[in-house]
This record gives sequence, structure tokens and C-alpha cells, in this order.
Amino acid sequence: MTTTAPLLILGTNPRAAALAATLTAAGRTTVSFGPEQLPRLARQFGLEDTRLILLCEESPEAAEAALAALPAPLARRDLVNLTSGTGAQAERAAARATARGANYLQGALMAHPEHVGDPATVLVYGGSGEVFARNEAELRLLGDATYLGPAVGVVPLYDLALLNLAWATLVGFLQTAALLGTAGVTARSVVPLLTRWLGTTVADVIGGYAAQVDEGHFPGDGEWLELDAPLMEHLREATEAHGLDAGLPLLVQSLTARGVAAGHGRASFASLIEVIRAPVTTHPPKPP
Amino acid sequence: MTTTAPLLILGTNPRAAALAATLTAAGRTTVSFGPEQLPRLARQFGLEDTRLILLCEESPEAAEAALAALPAPLARRDLVNLTSGTGAQAERAAARATARGANYLQGALMAHPEHVGDPATVLVYGGSGEVFARNEAELRLLGDATYLGPAVGVVPLYDLALLNLAWATLVGFLQTAALLGTAGVTARSVVPLLTRWLGTTVADVIGGYAAQVDEGHFPGDGEWLELDAPLMEHLREATEAHGLDAGLPLLVQSLTARGVAAGHGRASFASLIEVIRAPVTTHPPKPP
Repeated sequence: MTTTAPLLILGTNPRAAALAATLTAAGRTTVSFGPEQLPRLARQFGLEDTRLILLCEESPEAAEAALAALPAPLARRDLVNLTSGTGAQAERAAARATARGANYLQGALMAHPEHVGDPATVLVYGGSGEVFARNEAELRLLGDATYLGPAVGVVPLYDLALLNLAWATLVGFLQTAALLGTAGVTARSVVPLLTRWLGTTVADVIGGYAAQVDEGHFPGDGEWLELDAPLMEHLREATEAHGLDAGLPLLVQSLTARGVAAGHGRASFASLIEVIRAPVTTHPPKPP
Repeated sequence: MTTTAPLLILGTNPRAAALAATLTAAGRTTVSFGPEQLPRLARQFGLEDTRLILLCEESPEAAEAALAALPAPLARRDLVNLTSGTGAQAERAAARATARGANYLQGALMAHPEHVGDPATVLVYGGSGEVFARNEAELRLLGDATYLGPAVGVVPLYDLALLNLAWATLVGFLQTAALLGTAGVTARSVVPLLTRWLGTTVADVIGGYAAQVDEGHFPGDGEWLELDAPLMEHLREATEAHGLDAGLPLLVQSLTARGVAAGHGRASFASLIEVIRAPVTTHPPKPP
């Protein structure tokens, strides 16, 4: 694409604004619209020449409405949808856009708005490999860009899977900050230690656990569930003694107890993936 | 201390073995004992000259037994206790060791055995500042050493608080691996992306949240609970649809719902610390 044709960004939320700011700072001409402004403004900005459309709304419903309101034809346009949703929603958006002649690529932006444009920011894409290749220069301006393959539906799964890890880690951090706060330790004072530790020791443990998960073998050479269990009990007790919500410690303790009950007491913590894969679906009968 | 006097390591578990291996590799003479061997062997190894004793057992009870079985006097010895337990247990161990004349330092080793000796490995200490200063060279051989101050009881709180963050992150990783596994994505294949992301974007979010926690102000400029809530619902649905345990997604969803109900819908995710600090202690009455 030429840099003279404006890049159209559909969305007026903080993420869409960050996309526009990043691309504009890199010398791209961008035009950002919310759906209500589209009918009036779309033609005024010469969108006939637009080759790349970035769709970034707060919900799949809003993304659908924005596409429906777009008066310009989609034929031969490259449409990159960065809106979060389910796999089914991404597949429906892809089918509708493709029916209107667009080349469709689903993306997921795994960051807060302020991280857009940072080379470390994770973005994954699935769908048209031609759209990815043709716009790779622009997509790499937004952060680290990984093309996962032609399947559209796997992108929202990555999105949700990474959100899950982020939320787990961040809830863990808030719980840790609350616990240390009971001793007058400020959250800021422990951040350098905690983040260095996450990026080294914990990252290394994750690498080891990943190998165990892929091999389906969980040797408890250095740590094992029955070694962890009393410490988990200490954590729950300390949490409750300090008047804090014990939901997170209880969850970890409960998964571990189920792992031990399933015979994984001498297996590593990574064996809990077996518990996660075998959820408790039946509830004990209620007393009469 | 001189390097000719042996360093005594009490404990025969994988962590104690890693301590001995690391210190031996650095040219220190070490002697490791389990409690049952102590009475017979302690004198044989010339422990009269031992200045530094590292106590690293699998439980505070085992640590207490090891100390009780040690025939050598503790007077004027530096005792560093790396055994995990509660604050009360650390304080009791400190009181008993001090009563026997030892200089006591409580430590916490935040790593698996294989990380002992890595400069990135986090160890925190509290208690006698003289013990820390006198043995800092040895303690720094084990990893990164932080002296928190004279209070012994804060060390187990750090220990539990960091374990909490590790377990939350690692359970998050296992859940994420299980979710991606449903699409045939191997755990190992996503580790580089996930760990890089944890060390950059997520670490940066933690830094921002720490400032919000310390200031008690949670501006939802880039993300807010009501924006997250539908994505959390997608995550729970996808988790259940793939037959996985939804305990972790449900916990995050439940904390968020309580945050929204408390009026934090437009506040950042970090506002969930207010929910964690105000646990649900009363349960709704059971239907008759």
C-alpha cells in the first residue's frame, strides 16, 4: 500500500486511539471513526483509496455495527479485526466481511492501550496470510506480530488464554500486595523484586512445566504437591488471619487437594493440569 | 569466617542439597546432616569451628527437631533458617535459638532447588543484621539477597506472599496451556511468547497497578472492570465448552462482579484489591 492512502481505523475507544496515534507517529495517514460518524464522514476523507482497515471496537456487536455502517465497499480491502470476542464471533465477522469481498485477518492485541507501539507488545493474527504479509510493516509498528495460520477461530482462543494468564497473575499480584500491605510494605517497594522474579525464576519454572505438560510426565524431583500443601495451608491461614479474601489461596489449595486425591502427591505442581482437564462436574447430593 | 571451618547445613532434602552443592562449588567446605545422623557425626566433622549454620528443612517441625538434635553448642554461632513456615513459627525458632546463644537470621528462598546459586534467585532475610553482614558473601552465592530488617516474622509473610504470586501465575499458566491445548497448541510452543510477555507488558501493568494500590486511586483510563467483564464471561464459556475446570475464570469473574457491585465498574482492574481487602464473610441464608 502507498502511504498517501489513509489507513482507516474503525473505533473511538482508548485502544483504537492508541492504534491511530502509533501509526500516525510513524508517518501513516490515519482516519478514525466511530460508527455514528461513518455515513457522514467516510466519503469526505477519500476512503476510496484505503487499502487497510483496522477494526477495533469494545465488543463484537459494536464491530459488526461499525462494518454495517461503513458505506465504502469492502471489496479488495484488507480488513484486520482487533476486536476481542469468541471464536464463533470472529468466524462470523470473517464470513460477513469475506462475503462483502474483503480480505480478512483476525488479530488479538494483548496489552493495555499504552503498550501499543512497544516492540514487546504481543499481537497474534490468524486468517488471510496475504493480508498479514501485505501489511506486515504496519502491523509490526503496533508491536510484536505473530501469524498463527489461516484459522480465524484460534486467535480469540489465544486472546482468552493470554487474558487468563494476565488476570491470574494480576489477581495474584493484588493478593500479594494486600498481604504484604498488612505489614506496612508498600506495593511499589516490592515491584522490582517481584517483576524480576517473574521474568527469571517463575519464567524458568513455566518453561520446565511446559515440557512436563507436553510430555504428560510430572516428576516431583525438586517440589511436589504434598510438599506444597502445608505451605498452601499457611497461606490460607495468614490470608484469613489478616482479614483478606481467601478465594485465590482456596482455589490453589482445592486444585492441589484434588491432585493429591488423584494420586499426584509426589508429582510436581504442573500435574495440576490433569485436575484442570478433569473438572468436577458432579456435585454431591444435597442433604434431604 | 574462614573458609577452612566447615559450613554446617542441616537438612537432607533437595533444597538443602542444592545449598550444599552451590557453596561447595564456590570453594566452601560444607557438611550436610539430617537430624538422625547428627548425634553420631556432628563431632566427627570438627563442628567446633563452625561459625555458620544453614537450617533448611521441609517443615518447621523438622527444623525444630534438627536444632534439638544438634549436640554442638549454638553460642556465638550464626544460624540462618531457610525453612518455610508461619511468622509465629519463625519467631518461636528465633526465640529458642537465641536462648541457646545463637545469632539468628530468618531467610526465605523463593525458588526451586535448581535455581539455588542463580544470581536472579530471590532470597529475603530478617533478623540479626550482624548475621546478614557477616555472612553476606556466602548468602550472595545462593542468589539475590535482600535484608528486610530486624523483624523475623515479616520473612515468612514475604515467603507466603511470593508463593501466592507464583502459584497464581503457575495455575494461570497451566489453565492457559490447557485452553490452548484444546486447539492442538503445545505448551512449549507458547512459552517464549508468554514469558516474554510476562516480563514486559504484564510486569509494566504490575508497576502501574502498584502505584494505584499505594495511592488508593484506580483510574480506568485504558481498561476498566465493566470492559473486562464480558471478556471474562467469554473465557468462562470457552473454558467450560472445552470441558476444563472453570475455577480460576470463575474466581476472577466473581471478584470483578463484586468490584462492579461495589461501584468500581469504571475503575481499573487494580481496584479489585479493595474487594480482596473486604472479603465476603457472611453467606446468604440457606433456603428453608
